[in-house]
Amino acid sequence: MTTNSNTPRKLRLAMVGGGQGAFIGGVHRMAARLDDRFELVAGAFSSQTERNLASAGELGVSEQRCYADYAALLAGEAAREDGAEVIAIVTPNHLHYPAALASLEAGFHVVCEKPMTLSVEEAEQLAQAAEQSARHFVLMHNYAGYPLVQHARELIAEGALGQLRHVQVEYIQEWLSEPPEADNRQAVWRLDPAQAGAAGCLGDIGVHAFQLAQFISGQRVSEVSAELVAAVPGRALDDNVQALLRFDGGARGMLWASQTAAGYENALSIRVIGEKASLQWAQEQPNELWFKPLNGPSQRLTRRNDWLSEGIGQGIRLPGGHPEGYIEAFANLYQALADGHRSGEYPVWLPGIDDGVDGMRFIAAAIASSQAASAWTPLHLSETEHIAGDAL
Amino acid sequence: MTTNSNTPRKLRLAMVGGGQGAFIGGVHRMAARLDDRFELVAGAFSSQTERNLASAGELGVSEQRCYADYAALLAGEAAREDGAEVIAIVTPNHLHYPAALASLEAGFHVVCEKPMTLSVEEAEQLAQAAEQSARHFVLMHNYAGYPLVQHARELIAEGALGQLRHVQVEYIQEWLSEPPEADNRQAVWRLDPAQAGAAGCLGDIGVHAFQLAQFISGQRVSEVSAELVAAVPGRALDDNVQALLRFDGGARGMLWASQTAAGYENALSIRVIGEKASLQWAQEQPNELWFKPLNGPSQRLTRRNDWLSEGIGQGIRLPGGHPEGYIEAFANLYQALADGHRSGEYPVWLPGIDDGVDGMRFIAAAIASSQAASAWTPLHLSETEHIAGDAL
Amino acid sequence: MTTNSNTPRKLRLAMVGGGQGAFIGGVHRMAARLDDRFELVAGAFSSQTERNLASAGELGVSEQRCYADYAALLAGEAAREDGAEVIAIVTPNHLHYPAALASLEAGFHVVCEKPMTLSVEEAEQLAQAAEQSARHFVLMHNYAGYPLVQHARELIAEGALGQLRHVQVEYIQEWLSEPPEADNRQAVWRLDPAQAGAAGCLGDIGVHAFQLAQFISGQRVSEVSAELVAAVPGRALDDNVQALLRFDGGARGMLWASQTAAGYENALSIRVIGEKASLQWAQEQPNELWFKPLNGPSQRLTRRNDWLSEGIGQGIRLPGGHPEGYIEAFANLYQALADGHRSGEYPVWLPGIDDGVDGMRFIAAAIASSQAASAWTPLHLSETEHIAGDAL
Amino acid sequence: MTTNSNTPRKLRLAMVGGGQGAFIGGVHRMAARLDDRFELVAGAFSSQTERNLASAGELGVSEQRCYADYAALLAGEAAREDGAEVIAIVTPNHLHYPAALASLEAGFHVVCEKPMTLSVEEAEQLAQAAEQSARHFVLMHNYAGYPLVQHARELIAEGALGQLRHVQVEYIQEWLSEPPEADNRQAVWRLDPAQAGAAGCLGDIGVHAFQLAQFISGQRVSEVSAELVAAVPGRALDDNVQALLRFDGGARGMLWASQTAAGYENALSIRVIGEKASLQWAQEQPNELWFKPLNGPSQRLTRRNDWLSEGIGQGIRLPGGHPEGYIEAFANLYQALADGHRSGEYPVWLPGIDDGVDGMRFIAAAIASSQAASAWTPLHLSETEHIAGDAL
Repeated sequence: MTTNSNTPRKLRLAMVGGGQGAFIGGVHRMAARLDDRFELVAGAFSSQTERNLASAGELGVSEQRCYADYAALLAGEAAREDGAEVIAIVTPNHLHYPAALASLEAGFHVVCEKPMTLSVEEAEQLAQAAEQSARHFVLMHNYAGYPLVQHARELIAEGALGQLRHVQVEYIQEWLSEPPEADNRQAVWRLDPAQAGAAGCLGDIGVHAFQLAQFISGQRVSEVSAELVAAVPGRALDDNVQALLRFDGGARGMLWASQTAAGYENALSIRVIGEKASLQWAQEQPNELWFKPLNGPSQRLTRRNDWLSEGIGQGIRLPGGHPEGYIEAFANLYQALADGHRSGEYPVWLPGIDDGVDGMRFIAAAIASSQAASAWTPLHLSETEHIAGDAL
Repeated sequence: MTTNSNTPRKLRLAMVGGGQGAFIGGVHRMAARLDDRFELVAGAFSSQTERNLASAGELGVSEQRCYADYAALLAGEAAREDGAEVIAIVTPNHLHYPAALASLEAGFHVVCEKPMTLSVEEAEQLAQAAEQSARHFVLMHNYAGYPLVQHARELIAEGALGQLRHVQVEYIQEWLSEPPEADNRQAVWRLDPAQAGAAGCLGDIGVHAFQLAQFISGQRVSEVSAELVAAVPGRALDDNVQALLRFDGGARGMLWASQTAAGYENALSIRVIGEKASLQWAQEQPNELWFKPLNGPSQRLTRRNDWLSEGIGQGIRLPGGHPEGYIEAFANLYQALADGHRSGEYPVWLPGIDDGVDGMRFIAAAIASSQAASAWTPLHLSETEHIAGDAL
Repeated sequence: MTTNSNTPRKLRLAMVGGGQGAFIGGVHRMAARLDDRFELVAGAFSSQTERNLASAGELGVSEQRCYADYAALLAGEAAREDGAEVIAIVTPNHLHYPAALASLEAGFHVVCEKPMTLSVEEAEQLAQAAEQSARHFVLMHNYAGYPLVQHARELIAEGALGQLRHVQVEYIQEWLSEPPEADNRQAVWRLDPAQAGAAGCLGDIGVHAFQLAQFISGQRVSEVSAELVAAVPGRALDDNVQALLRFDGGARGMLWASQTAAGYENALSIRVIGEKASLQWAQEQPNELWFKPLNGPSQRLTRRNDWLSEGIGQGIRLPGGHPEGYIEAFANLYQALADGHRSGEYPVWLPGIDDGVDGMRFIAAAIASSQAASAWTPLHLSETEHIAGDAL
Repeated sequence: MTTNSNTPRKLRLAMVGGGQGAFIGGVHRMAARLDDRFELVAGAFSSQTERNLASAGELGVSEQRCYADYAALLAGEAAREDGAEVIAIVTPNHLHYPAALASLEAGFHVVCEKPMTLSVEEAEQLAQAAEQSARHFVLMHNYAGYPLVQHARELIAEGALGQLRHVQVEYIQEWLSEPPEADNRQAVWRLDPAQAGAAGCLGDIGVHAFQLAQFISGQRVSEVSAELVAAVPGRALDDNVQALLRFDGGARGMLWASQTAAGYENALSIRVIGEKASLQWAQEQPNELWFKPLNGPSQRLTRRNDWLSEGIGQGIRLPGGHPEGYIEAFANLYQALADGHRSGEYPVWLPGIDDGVDGMRFIAAAIASSQAASAWTPLHLSETEHIAGDAL
């Protein structure tokens, strides 16, 4: 279990987005609080002034540090001696890129929601900015924060499965099976290309599934053959994604993401099959990981320090049998950022810019494939082609 | 529960294949025995004389009715007043077509293993023969025999799911994850194109998954985009199949069949998602069916007469909570054949020629798609194209 | 998997009870048929003449060998050269003892339903008769026929759990949660002391749970503290049994049997806890057995020859992942009887007289305890006390 | 989901116990932080000065407010204008009573670990103190904080199960299956009667199971027949408890608590059976609750606002499918205390003094029963008997 080393002081956190009625902003705040390594000091919570101020009041943020937008926030906080050090960006998709870019350029650490940007180009520009910055960029692929997901990744890296053959990942939900009510803010912006970008379900949850597949398998997707549909008539964006995958290490895979899967709540799951064994994990039962050796009994691993890989204990707060969940996994990313800030070493598993660039390439390639009758489409162009500027 | 009506006499059964060391022949015999509607009277169990005779002896079949091959069997039994009435064909794949064709032409009922033939052409010729015959042809898609599979089909037909959107089916096994021992007869012929045909895993289990998807959904697959691979190096046939599906009723789907899925025994499972609810069933837990309404609690249906669709009770021998398994489901096809023979009415769910023709078209289309970089490939050509003789 | 050795001929089986409308008789017949080692040649299926004859007709038993009662059957069959060799007794409880006693005395093998008799005294007299007979007596504790139950027993016998500490067993059903319909023959006799004996739920299913606990643990229950109730008002017999157990090997345990457990179908399950590991098995998922080592990942064992104890393969007909169920487990007892008859060696696990005597002692002790304010009550009196004739 | 109303300020929290190396203190702190309604301002974390100061430093508590013991803490904080308002007592058992009593008498709210005291007498005295106090006393029966546990309680209260018949509860762990290492502080004090009291496993987790059974069923246990053992030789206290229960509403039940259950981590589970339906919940899968109607399909309820009982939404932070766990349930008790402090109304489900008094009576009665050969022992003496001072 975590043994707290002395915590001299908390990191100062500011938030862009996450006003009243939003969902993920509140999760960020709980996650940041859980381990007592952050304090929320400022915010630009909403573009609507009233909502913005009300949100600040509720959250104990003073009126002076409640800003009209991210630009004002960055300027205001940069000017203070006790200014924020970390900016959490929890807006709809279209603001991720400009807010993150400006935050990095202004010298802040960034915690940013996915999808990282609206295009591969933006992603690459953000990557450049991050490289030039002395600050750390965390992309909120929160499912990587589950201890057993990290353990799965370690087991594969250590060769426990042998050569990988198949990677099956899916992320399915029912919540957009019907046209949403007009006042469902979370649903409305996700279905609007102006705010969500060119990818609907693909960008909202497909990219999580993609990241998880790469994260655990340790292989990168090189090509995709996809079909995107809007199962609910009249939608401008996809709500269902089906794809075949080829990985650079030779594995084959399939990915299914859906927001029209009646009967499923938040069913992200993955199976990785190797020549010697396979692994299976599901987000809705996150405290167990199945290790299934070829020709042997399947084993149910739980979140226990005595058999988890070295170093994963960092993110475990309770003994086995005491369920940890979504918030705890989320908090592990915040914890890793804070500990990294202090020690100067960020754990290799902490999702960041590279995940974001790959995620945007996956989105672009999947859309292109779907438009080209599911033709196999590469994610990573060769240097030459890239220079030639061919659009994905 | 089944109420036995008076059984005046048992149908006389002969078997082609199924000698010592085979697997599925023994299952057919147990299934035929279970409900006391058949007696095994003759066989051509093996092409090896000694094994053939030994098998007959073990099974209580007299030496005179133990034949060298199916042709001799059909001739000999046709000549007897008390000759066999039903021929069970349980050989390796390449003999299905000739044995079934000859059996039908000689006036026997047929129970045939899948895949029905080696090609679409053979399948269509067998279909013609079956149409011209007064006898019944049963294709052993045994998973259709599970009561809850039939109930799933009924629920969808009745509209309990609304318009179907997604069909996800998979059939994965681990048993060919490594090159088999030379004396593993069941494995060896399945990996030999001369006996198995052009499809490996695809023909052995992929076609079961395909049939189940069509059987339960009530929609037919119109196009497939597939990638077949041999995950174990050096194999002449596929051992892993990944495919995207388009159904004629508008649903989209995915199919995964694998015999290199370390950690999985006989994991056939299916999910059908509609606009109002979804269904989920897995062969390894066949006594439960999940009905998952949109925005409501999931329900676990079991094999109970009081809530199953009318007519499904036929194949139920035990009250809920008393597990039935693979043999019982298998036996339901034999039972349906025997009852159909007596009453003249065969249940609509009983798999037969149409399943076989579709299955062969699926196999042909999936192979063609895989060879064409996973291009979407239709299963059913228009009449004109067909006449033109374009190969799939 | 079973390799059939040459079967020269089937054992001739006669049945007492099991006429139309009965449940368990049909299960016995399917079980006896499954492996082709028995043929049903005679019966006294019902005390109602019409039902008796109709049952015989349905089952292919000739009118001459359809007898009015077990006495006539035994006389008639003993007089024939081709007479029955095995008598299956599947009547309501009160006839088990007289029919079994007469069958043994007349020189037949016996397969008898539980509870074996109505009293400890009857049980002991039957034990004496069995000892003096050259025939074999099988008590239909069918759950002992599941391969994984036998494997659990072997694992414990081999010491895989270390010293046993706790044995938790339960058998719960919902089907008597309400007063039954008058025409529910199976329910009506079970609730009638004249036919069922002094124990209701206790004798019908409690005794199965008791037998399973002793069978798997290898320890015998020495004392019981029980409370029996009729949860449904007005019942003459118990429908719910709760008991604490002390085992002669030092383990402690609990037993719950109920036929008023709304929401449960046929939920027999057991956990055995030792100092090094525990085992867990549930009848409704009979194809998996959990082995749970102290401080290690739980393992899911399935019904696979490659890891089951030597000799258990006898009763396995299918590879792992192909579910076997209730009928197959039941059939394993018939198979063991037939194979024992041929070889002269009956497997040690095959339930028989000893299970029956212990079962009746458990029933008597549980009733006595319940009547004495749940006082701890021994099952096995010392010789002296026994001679003294004190009633339990 | 929770909509935060304006939070003017946080409650000031002090902690007694919970220094470095302790387990539950850290959970209290995370729980108190999660919803931002508390700030930790003072503590007496350890009786060892060095550990005490180091703990304070780590937790951001100033040296002046780090006290030598609870008496000093209460005196010091009472004297400050900005003194603590709530005392969390997270010491070994023997200090619960004196610390809680003094805290109440000094005018603080109390959050206290279980078992509440070491005896019934202490419990009743504390009850008196609480009644005379204007402050609120929360007993940390944290499992009552799970939303689905509260929903189960509501369903039963509303009559969804009809008359209750059976209540089966168990809480089993493996962690004391072997003698603990000497430096395992959490284990050592639990096995020492001087610190733990007269009950080992019974007081540590048995009392949780007892509270849960009463909490959900809405019935109180009136009598118990128990057997306590030390399965590990040489222990002064019980590590395994088996009990039969009688409830004042007529239900019967069984309780099993064990810390020597190899293979189980923190397996608290409960089933409540009524005449119309039953409920089933297990702490290790806390995000699902099974509702099992008689003769109908079982339903899997999840933690979703749209079907949970009115008012339970208070403690839900995430949509269905996003797992909440142990910390979140724990936090719900803190949240309820804070909200109750503000509004003056504490929710009826919030565990407190009454749970503690009943828990101590259960412990006393179970020990007495075990010492009297499992005789049925009442929990609640009549007034007269009580006055007579008969020891339990």
